Order: sequence, then structure tokens, then C-alpha cells
Amino acid sequence: MAHEPVVPGDTIGILGSGQLGRMLAMAAARLGIKTHIYCPESGPAFDVAARHTMAAYDDDAALAAFAASVKVVTYEFENVPAHTAEFLAQRVPVHPNPRALATTQDRLVEKRFLNDLGIPTAPFMDVTDTGALAHAVANLGRPSILKTRRFGYDGKGQVMIREGSDLTATFRSLGSAPCILEGLVRFSREVSVVAARSADGGFAAFALSENQHEHHILSVTRAPAPALELTAAEAMSMTGRIAEALDYVGVLAVEMFLVDDVGPDGVLRETLVVNEIAPRVHNSGHWTLDGAVTSQFEQHIRAICGFPLGSTRMHGAVEMHNLIGPDVLAWRDLMAQPGACVHLYGKHEARPGRKMGHVTRVLLP
Amino acid sequence: MAHEPVVPGDTIGILGSGQLGRMLAMAAARLGIKTHIYCPESGPAFDVAARHTMAAYDDDAALAAFAASVKVVTYEFENVPAHTAEFLAQRVPVHPNPRALATTQDRLVEKRFLNDLGIPTAPFMDVTDTGALAHAVANLGRPSILKTRRFGYDGKGQVMIREGSDLTATFRSLGSAPCILEGLVRFSREVSVVAARSADGGFAAFALSENQHEHHILSVTRAPAPALELTAAEAMSMTGRIAEALDYVGVLAVEMFLVDDVGPDGVLRETLVVNEIAPRVHNSGHWTLDGAVTSQFEQHIRAICGFPLGSTRMHGAVEMHNLIGPDVLAWRDLMAQPGACVHLYGKHEARPGRKMGHVTRVLLP
Repeated sequence: MAHEPVVPGDTIGILGSGQLGRMLAMAAARLGIKTHIYCPESGPAFDVAARHTMAAYDDDAALAAFAASVKVVTYEFENVPAHTAEFLAQRVPVHPNPRALATTQDRLVEKRFLNDLGIPTAPFMDVTDTGALAHAVANLGRPSILKTRRFGYDGKGQVMIREGSDLTATFRSLGSAPCILEGLVRFSREVSVVAARSADGGFAAFALSENQHEHHILSVTRAPAPALELTAAEAMSMTGRIAEALDYVGVLAVEMFLVDDVGPDGVLRETLVVNEIAPRVHNSGHWTLDGAVTSQFEQHIRAICGFPLGSTRMHGAVEMHNLIGPDVLAWRDLMAQPGACVHLYGKHEARPGRKMGHVTRVLLP
Repeated sequence: MAHEPVVPGDTIGILGSGQLGRMLAMAAARLGIKTHIYCPESGPAFDVAARHTMAAYDDDAALAAFAASVKVVTYEFENVPAHTAEFLAQRVPVHPNPRALATTQDRLVEKRFLNDLGIPTAPFMDVTDTGALAHAVANLGRPSILKTRRFGYDGKGQVMIREGSDLTATFRSLGSAPCILEGLVRFSREVSVVAARSADGGFAAFALSENQHEHHILSVTRAPAPALELTAAEAMSMTGRIAEALDYVGVLAVEMFLVDDVGPDGVLRETLVVNEIAPRVHNSGHWTLDGAVTSQFEQHIRAICGFPLGSTRMHGAVEMHNLIGPDVLAWRDLMAQPGACVHLYGKHEARPGRKMGHVTRVLLP
């Protein structure tokens, strides 16, 4: 199927109406591209898009009309149903491609994919029932982490197995869904690479970011991450290999653990272990809106539209704080802080654990 | 009339659907503010706004419904009809206020206002008919510039009077509208200050910008402008006095001529002469989108919503080039230039003289 190239003035489609879809739509508008948001629920992306469709992800008539109205489709979240992605991909280019989506939607498939590329992950075993869980725990030890293969995010769909944990009850607490057991990685820092790959194989990564989580939700990102130069280069290289192997087009984020190891020679070595791949723009790249020449959102739009990738140069060291739930109530004080770039997502209710906005500070170089 | 303060989640109204309205709407969205655009014609701002009304500026029913739907009204252009501004101001706060609008809509009123503040302008005389024009030319000499008092922009509504110009024909060529004659200022550079004033009297200016025009349309802006430190401070001070005297709330731009004068003592002196005041965000401030912590658009939204003003700190020296008419056809090459931040306004037709986008480059500090 040959498709016309995207040019300014065209409309692109985005699945999902959350804050990522919203920031993608605004980045598209900077480049003269209109957006059509598709989502079963109303959300903050509707407010900044030229058009929106509120329909279910299995509504083929609505999907067909959506596909006919746009030049390319992308998405803001990795749990796009396989049927939706494939149905659309038969009609219009979908970036990142459905295979990238399928690979990253399933923790077991994702980890096998990474290991096949020679990229280290936490040790893991497939868990289909309580018997398999007992076998895996015997192999990987305690503590270890049981995770559902699908639909996990922000700590949901995972539980720690400790000394004395009841395996049957633990497996049931995750709905007896297909799982993996992961051995614990004793890391010193969590880092991530946000990068883009273009259809012609071009690759551009933003600076390595260090991430701090609270209650399994990203709290603070600092970039560049304190890490050896060689470690940062290795993180970029891994991300490039992942993108290449997935024939990826768009922005992806790779979350990694950084393990410090001082050898018998007294030399510090840093080892990277990939935790997971997000086939989309990522919270740990939000600092690029204020701290880099091109934002991750614009970079994604450039990549999926076939435009040249933009510069990832930073304006200085940055610090990004998420505004989770009631944090957002301090918006006026935050706006009064010199140098604070405040972003609010236009969500109605500041429920606990909900990402309501973020604040970036660019530190003087 | 007491009004509730604006908070994130509220909707604000913008008169005008051009690129300035579009960039204002996007800046509002960053802060969690929804926008309702009001304009007689469809335009690029409609694509990024939660809501729009297409109706005439004298449609009182549509204006009343618009006013009822928003917490505050602003505008992207200075030629808002007085009736429209006053009708809305009776129902909802209008920023900048209708008096600022009235003062800056009329070149004669504007120049008298400036001179009353002790701020230098080009010498000028009121021209109501051909007789008055002859009298003015006798006083101010040739060359001098005849300008309509109202509705001039980008060189429209003005004509140079040279040796041999026929005064009657010249006056008629401007429709025999009320005019002023301006004496020619022999300036070395054109500069502008883009600044914001908040309702509580706070004031924040971006760096002095140097502007180059081609065919009377802004072509290039460079900031900070090459000027003596004292000259830049004087430009800020003048802008602050203008904003204060107008009880201004929002972003304004003051265009000035910089006149070099080397005195008999051999010392360079720079004198500033104000050319005009734009009661709105301004093309010479577009570089702030990529080159400053807060953009002029966000600063305007902060000011009119009663939020704290943001930091005007620059990321480095900047250069902004307008994409006029067919310039925009080079968009793909421009996107490929390292460090070029490309903005396209989503306009359909690249007509000659039409502002289609701009490109900003942040130079390394």
C-alpha cells in the first residue's frame, strides 16, 4: 500500500485523549499539522485538537471513518488493542508499527526480545499457574517480583514475593493472569533513554535521565543523569539496537536499572539492565518541552510524519517534578517560583495518584 | 462588577483566529486553561481551541453568549472595534482594557499620549485635509511620511512624501482618511521591547530585540539587540511607564527607533524614539517560544488570568526569521537544519506577504 507523504496542513490521528495525546497534539500544531483524537472517553487532548471521535476501540465503523480522515495514526499508550492497531494499519500507516506494540505489551515477549538482542534484563521465568510460580521462586529466590504479562503500569499488576508470602494467594491477587516472576535487581539508580528513530533509520537520543519513583509513580527526573560517559553511551547504543530491531518509527523510552559494582581492582563499573520499553513518548522525557531545542513530542511527530528529526541539544541541566494528585493545588506558588516552567494537563479531578501536571526547571549551564 | 479569579480548568476568550490567537491558545493549554476563539472568519486558532464562535464583531447576541462562556477576554489584534470591546467589558474583564486599545488604535492619540509621558516620538502633525497636509509638509519637510490615523499595519496605510510628490493625490491615495504626517527619523536600528504588566503592577520585560523589516514586514529579529546597556535600560523604563499609564494588563510591544549620535566629544550616544505601541503579543517576541523560560504568549495568559508573571530569562542569544509567503515552501529543509526551531501556522495559502510561520535559532551561550 503506497501512501502519500505527510505535509503541513494534513491531519494525523492519535489514539488516546490523555496528557500525552494532548502534548502530542500541541507539538503537531507547532508544525502546522492538525490532529484528530480517537478515544472511548473524553480527555484533555480533545481541548487542543481540530477534531475528535469518542468511540470504542472495537467500533470498526468509527475506526474506518477515523482512518479515512488522517494521513498517519499514532497512539499515546501501549495498551492499544491488537485488533485496533491491525484494523487501522490495513488502511493507513500506524507508527510505531503493530509489531513494536505487540512486543512491548507483553513482559515475557519483551524480555525474550531483549535477551535475543544480547541486552541484559532482570532474570525472569514464565508463570502460568501456582506450580510454575513455586518452581520460579525456587529458582530466582526471595524477594522477587510477580508481574502480570500485560496491562501493568505505575506499579499496578505487580506484587513483591517475600519470605513467608503465600504463593497461591499472591498469584490469585493478580487475577491468576499469565505472569512472569522477576529476580530482584539491586540497582543504585533508575535511568531512561528517550530517543527517536525515523523511517530512514535515523536515530536521535535525548540525554540520559535519572528517575526517582514514589509509590511506583515517577516523581522526579534529572538530566543529564549522573553516570559515567561510557554508561550513557551504552544506554544510547542499547536503545538504538532496540529501535532498529523493532523497525521502530517514532519516540520510544527505555527504562533501565544502573547497577554499581566496585571490582576487586577498586574500579567503579556501571552495568545497565533494561527494565522495560515504552513504545511512546514518556514521562521521563517531559523535561524536553522546556529544556531541549526539540521536545520529545515534536520529535515523535517529526518521525511519524517523515520529517527530519530535530536537535536534542539541551539548554542546561534540568529537573522535572511531577504534580501527582493534590500536588497540583500548589499551582499558583509554583508559577511564582523564578524559572519554574509549569504545565497543567487540564484534568478535572485531582485524584490521588493521578498525574495532573509537571514542573521543569532549567538550571543555568 | 466583581469577578471570580481565573483558575486552571477555566475557559478564556480570544478575539481573532490568526497565528497570534493560535499561539495564545496553545500557551493557555500548557497552563490548563481552555480557550474559546471568537472571529468572523475561520482561522488557524480554531484548530487548537476547545471552542470557537464564528460571528461578526457587531453581533451582540453572539458576543453576549461568548462573554457568558468565558472568565476573561483578550484579543490578538489592535483593531478590535470599540463597540465590541466595550460591549464585552460590561460583562466580563477585558485585558488589555478598552482604553489601552483606543489609545493605540489611533496614531494621533498614541503620539500625544507618548509625548505627554515625556517619551520622544517622530515629530508629527494632524492632517485632516489637503490644506493641513501642505501646512504640515512645510513644517516637517520632505521626505516625510503620511499615515492614516487608524488601521495601518505592515506598511499598509502609509506613503512617503518626497520632493515633487503631489500632495492632493497622495492624500487621496489614502482614501482622504484622517492622517498624521510624520517627520523622518534617521535611525540606525529598529528595536522593540516586549513586556508584560500584571494587574498588581508587576512588570517583566524580555531582552531588547533588534528588528529588520523587508517591504515593511518584519523579516528578522535578533535578541539581545546590540545596544548600550543604558539604552536597553531606558527602553525597558519607557515601556514600563507606558504600561503603567495605560493601567495595562497583559503583554505589550513597543517599537522604537535607535538613533546613533556621536557628539563633539567623540562619545557615542544612543537616543530612543518610540514608533508605535502594539497592545498585544508581537511578532518580534516570537523568539521567546524557544529562547526564553517563559514565552510571550504564556506571559500574556499569566497576566490576564492574574497568575504570577514568569521568568524572562533567555537560553542564549537568538535569531528569529519570519517565513513570508512562499518562504514556507522550504519547510522540510528548515526542519533539517540543526538547531532550527520551526513553527508553521497552519494557514492554507502561501500568499505573498502573508506570515506563514517562523524559525528560531538559539545560539550557544
